[in-house]
Amino acid sequence: MDNEIKQRLIAKAKEGMSNAYSIVFDFKVGAAVLTNNGNIYQGCNTESVISGLGLCAERSSIYHAVAHGEYIFEAIAIVSKLEEPIKPCGMCRQLIGEFNQLSESNIKIIMVGSKGKIIESTINDMLPAIHGPKTLNLDLEEYCK
Amino acid sequence: MDNEIKQRLIAKAKEGMSNAYSIVFDFKVGAAVLTNNGNIYQGCNTESVISGLGLCAERSSIYHAVAHGEYIFEAIAIVSKLEEPIKPCGMCRQLIGEFNQLSESNIKIIMVGSKGKIIESTINDMLPAIHGPKTLNLDLEEYCK
Amino acid sequence: MDNEIKQRLIAKAKEGMSNAYSIVFDFKVGAAVLTNNGNIYQGCNTESVISGLGLCAERSSIYHAVAHGEYIFEAIAIVSKLEEPIKPCGMCRQLIGEFNQLSESNIKIIMVGSKGKIIESTINDMLPAIHGPKTLNLDLEEYCK
Amino acid sequence: MDNEIKQRLIAKAKEGMSNAYSIVFDFKVGAAVLTNNGNIYQGCNTESVISGLGLCAERSSIYHAVAHGEYIFEAIAIVSKLEEPIKPCGMCRQLIGEFNQLSESNIKIIMVGSKGKIIESTINDMLPAIHGPKTLNLDLEEYCK
Repeated sequence: MDNEIKQRLIAKAKEGMSNAYSIVFDFKVGAAVLTNNGNIYQGCNTESVISGLGLCAERSSIYHAVAHGEYIFEAIAIVSKLEEPIKPCGMCRQLIGEFNQLSESNIKIIMVGSKGKIIESTINDMLPAIHGPKTLNLDLEEYCK
Repeated sequence: MDNEIKQRLIAKAKEGMSNAYSIVFDFKVGAAVLTNNGNIYQGCNTESVISGLGLCAERSSIYHAVAHGEYIFEAIAIVSKLEEPIKPCGMCRQLIGEFNQLSESNIKIIMVGSKGKIIESTINDMLPAIHGPKTLNLDLEEYCK
Repeated sequence: MDNEIKQRLIAKAKEGMSNAYSIVFDFKVGAAVLTNNGNIYQGCNTESVISGLGLCAERSSIYHAVAHGEYIFEAIAIVSKLEEPIKPCGMCRQLIGEFNQLSESNIKIIMVGSKGKIIESTINDMLPAIHGPKTLNLDLEEYCK
Repeated sequence: MDNEIKQRLIAKAKEGMSNAYSIVFDFKVGAAVLTNNGNIYQGCNTESVISGLGLCAERSSIYHAVAHGEYIFEAIAIVSKLEEPIKPCGMCRQLIGEFNQLSESNIKIIMVGSKGKIIESTINDMLPAIHGPKTLNLDLEEYCK
């Protein structure tokens, strides 16, 4: 992955973090996804007082891209105020993994700490043996462009 | 509500609908929220094969606005291919209602059918007696701007 | 509704409350549903650190009943440590409302404060104009017994 | 793991499957968890027409145990009508993983196909590098019994 693009992706994730709506945990997280068209969409955690509502930054960035009609992702960056890079939860991995089945590109996951430490992985490593739309043989063709 | 703004809001909801990711129900829905700054953010339903994942168009549009740092909403429009205007689910009403507690503006809900029939309501009417962040005395001040 | 049954329902909701898993808000809530067979299932809030995971006591009690093969509900009671009776969130109302479409019995909602104050309502009043499985003409017959 | 207990766990998961509420996918799944007290709780998928509502069988069985005041799990079995053993989604793995942090027992995941094929794994293998309540240093002591 091109370093300049990676830096732009991380910068956009930080921009997302500044918008986080964190009324419960007071813990802001940001994310950004890079699509196959080269576009980048930022996201942030959006909390609710209700268990089961609200979402993490990673899902926010993906839903943001989908709202613009983009479904094929190459990488996602995640940032928080913690020195140690923060990992995506299982719920976000599931969503990333479902969209990964559209292209099987094995989406890169770039986790960034507050002082610049970076851990890189992939969705296949972070959610092995996924149960997704392909497991159920759903027709995804309309979205595979 | 100014008619020209309402028409722009509905047009943006339709734009959202065209981006819907509906792999389960094959039923596209779009939405758009109007913020207190006069900005409009579109959203669309984004489905998952997993019960508990994915979201409706209304939540998508709100999360889209939050990703841009906007939390105060005046109105939301919802469109689908059904002739009868589609109603927001309880989960979306909860999210709308929680953000409504930031300004108590009683957010307008504009439901639009495929042939132009419009039903208008408000969040207070569609989710009476809400349990939200104010019920729990959470500090929301940072977001009330 | 028979008073003795109502008291048993409330007692079971309190039993549920004592089991609540509240690692985030430290705020325990209990609920119990009464089915058309006269059985009662308790539930409790079950919190997660992830926005979008975990559930409220009301949903817990309903999922508990479903795990035993019961789908038709007559009433649900909700209790917390607050003096003022606690209201179900929109997400729980949506789930109650969807199961209500199996029998259209207009499920009673009994909200109970810590000192005995009771507010009674119904799902049709607390979630007017629901979007549910009947709106989509799904076949529910297998579960309407 | 004792074979007789494993067979009882799988039998209970099948019992759960027979209760599944599958109005969308018509695809019944069952699960059962074994607690550190030797008790077993069954669960089933409970579907909704709303993206973001309803749950999988695995979460159902865990919420069922929690409603009875049990939080420490040793194993979970999952069954469906598919010949190939079905895998838990990321959302269920996240919930299992969060409860796993109470005891660090590395909960066993037993996936069972319709003709008896069994795949066994663990939560640490199926959700590596979890973000859970311990990551946030939450006080879990009350529930670690």
